[in-house]
Amino acid sequence: MARHVATPARLEAFSDGVIAVIITIMVLELKVPHQDGMDGIRAVLPTLSLYLISFAFTGIYWINHHHLVHRTEEADELILYANLGFLFCLSLLPFFTSYVLEKKMDSFSVALYVASMILTGFSFLLLRLAIGRRLRHAGRFEAEDKAVERKNWLSLFVYLVAIPLAFQHPRVALGLVSFVTVIWVTPTVGIKPREEFPRNERG
Amino acid sequence: MARHVATPARLEAFSDGVIAVIITIMVLELKVPHQDGMDGIRAVLPTLSLYLISFAFTGIYWINHHHLVHRTEEADELILYANLGFLFCLSLLPFFTSYVLEKKMDSFSVALYVASMILTGFSFLLLRLAIGRRLRHAGRFEAEDKAVERKNWLSLFVYLVAIPLAFQHPRVALGLVSFVTVIWVTPTVGIKPREEFPRNERG
Amino acid sequence: MARHVATPARLEAFSDGVIAVIITIMVLELKVPHQDGMDGIRAVLPTLSLYLISFAFTGIYWINHHHLVHRTEEADELILYANLGFLFCLSLLPFFTSYVLEKKMDSFSVALYVASMILTGFSFLLLRLAIGRRLRHAGRFEAEDKAVERKNWLSLFVYLVAIPLAFQHPRVALGLVSFVTVIWVTPTVGIKPREEFPRNERG
Amino acid sequence: MARHVATPARLEAFSDGVIAVIITIMVLELKVPHQDGMDGIRAVLPTLSLYLISFAFTGIYWINHHHLVHRTEEADELILYANLGFLFCLSLLPFFTSYVLEKKMDSFSVALYVASMILTGFSFLLLRLAIGRRLRHAGRFEAEDKAVERKNWLSLFVYLVAIPLAFQHPRVALGLVSFVTVIWVTPTVGIKPREEFPRNERG
Repeated sequence: MARHVATPARLEAFSDGVIAVIITIMVLELKVPHQDGMDGIRAVLPTLSLYLISFAFTGIYWINHHHLVHRTEEADELILYANLGFLFCLSLLPFFTSYVLEKKMDSFSVALYVASMILTGFSFLLLRLAIGRRLRHAGRFEAEDKAVERKNWLSLFVYLVAIPLAFQHPRVALGLVSFVTVIWVTPTVGIKPREEFPRNERG
Repeated sequence: MARHVATPARLEAFSDGVIAVIITIMVLELKVPHQDGMDGIRAVLPTLSLYLISFAFTGIYWINHHHLVHRTEEADELILYANLGFLFCLSLLPFFTSYVLEKKMDSFSVALYVASMILTGFSFLLLRLAIGRRLRHAGRFEAEDKAVERKNWLSLFVYLVAIPLAFQHPRVALGLVSFVTVIWVTPTVGIKPREEFPRNERG
Repeated sequence: MARHVATPARLEAFSDGVIAVIITIMVLELKVPHQDGMDGIRAVLPTLSLYLISFAFTGIYWINHHHLVHRTEEADELILYANLGFLFCLSLLPFFTSYVLEKKMDSFSVALYVASMILTGFSFLLLRLAIGRRLRHAGRFEAEDKAVERKNWLSLFVYLVAIPLAFQHPRVALGLVSFVTVIWVTPTVGIKPREEFPRNERG
Repeated sequence: MARHVATPARLEAFSDGVIAVIITIMVLELKVPHQDGMDGIRAVLPTLSLYLISFAFTGIYWINHHHLVHRTEEADELILYANLGFLFCLSLLPFFTSYVLEKKMDSFSVALYVASMILTGFSFLLLRLAIGRRLRHAGRFEAEDKAVERKNWLSLFVYLVAIPLAFQHPRVALGLVSFVTVIWVTPTVGIKPREEFPRNERG
């Protein structure tokens, strides 16, 4: 039993469950405004936008997690633990999202929000390294894996830039972060968007 | 890795998780009334009805999602993103449900609720188009897919009618919307309810 | 597509998700008592007991759902809808659980709680009939299915008795209901607890 | 139907769902502090640490659950019930976590928290015994299973020691418990961390 190396099926199922709960409980933060009519909508708009950023961030991590875990055929202990670490960091996002909202998007809270994104990105990188280690051992580590790893580091670096920016222009920092999230974390769209068709014969 | 086109299995698992959380956290909105006895029940009845409408709406979307995703054998990036968009729109339903409740079913909140249903319907249509694009490419797009697509557009149109109606008779608009939900979004019941038996040999 | 009869795999996955959320969000009702030390524990004990009853009720329904859905190889529209109905009724349990707690286990709230259990039991019976209809058609309906159906009716009847009882002795009614839940809803334990071994060769 | 012995697939799916919800709803306990800037972070740090302990505890149980259930090919009624019992005990963790937080880590609340961990450990042991019974019957019970069982008993014993300790040094007791959790409940890391590679050919 101690020697048992798991297939990633249950790892995926558990991660799907945790990410699904994380992405959805954030909606509980959306509070119905006191104002009636369009004033209410205007009051709730910043909250909605931030929810959208957090949702996109989590959703795109789910897509990346999907692609990453799909690469390996076995999930050893190190991968299981790295995955738990990643899920822990990601699970803090709803908290830091409401942090930003309750502090009315002040500089410190936005910096904190970006810092939590860095933490999540870093924990995901650890998971990537844990899986890469296994791929390397199995001789299945490809040039492309290296490229995605580098992209991962780069996006962490851009997030890092957003922290000092948050102290001057918190909204600009939020904009940068959400822009970077969509552009950088995305695996293929934009690079070779229609390439998948010639290989239609095999999923 | 960038070329990897996923099977829809994990897409389904994640969507199931998100929809399951969405459909269930709405129950947290149900607040125990202050009144005792039957008065309490009477006080909670509008909330319960609205919860039922939202539950049915979400549940029927789950059934449609099930049927739609089942059609494709591969989930490319476009499908993954369209699916995230759909889940995002659907995840706003608990918020707009409590909006209607806290505003005591006033015209504006009901119109907003219907508008969020349109948004969800539209995002589902995008997912349908993303999957249709893949089916067309694989030569598996059938006349029936076209028909369901048209039904989708039609139901969006009826929802659109419900918005001005909400400003005059909010409860009638809610009734119309829930009626339309059940009738239009339903894939087969009512059209050929007992047809499935002759094809019993194959699921 | 309209003719598509689904396998129950995704039905199970979605139901698992919904039941998992239902069973777990009830724990959010447990409020930390103001009293310190053992007094706090004593204050929270009725809540804990009720949570245990609701958890057992939901958990045993999950087991029964598992056994029931496992019987069928196809999930037609009727089964999908009956399943949604069952999940809707079950999803009201957290609400009626907190109802009992906030009304301090008064007669009316306990009667309501039992009534919601009847509703759930009835909706489960509908699901059982929908699946039975399909089994009958496929010639796979067995004497045992009939027996379980009868057991289902009987437990509904005993719940019905608990309602008038609740108006006199609410705690006795709760005890009866939880006793009945465990005894009646249980599929096999107690009847032939060790029978499974001779058939060890096939799950 | 009464004779039906389930495969553990749906047991896993349901448990994954419940554990995913348990591990994630704890984050709802994290309240945004009133203080601004670093003072806020300092105020929220004990809460964050406790959340981390509870997350690690739950996550490691998930890993162990994964390893344990993977051992059996069939889930009989006893296993299904033992599993429900385990999930019930585990589901109390968010409650006892907020207990510790609202009582500001006083001795009694920490002792209670540790007691709930003992309860969970004990229920997990029952699940282990239920699965062991089946393995023994099938002649698949190995020396290693015995060893893990012993490790389980031992960790329960150390938790037991932490209870009187909590009355004197609650924070030391928390530290001990989290240390023990990570060390003892861990199945393989630390014992033979790199052993999995020679068996790379088979998951």
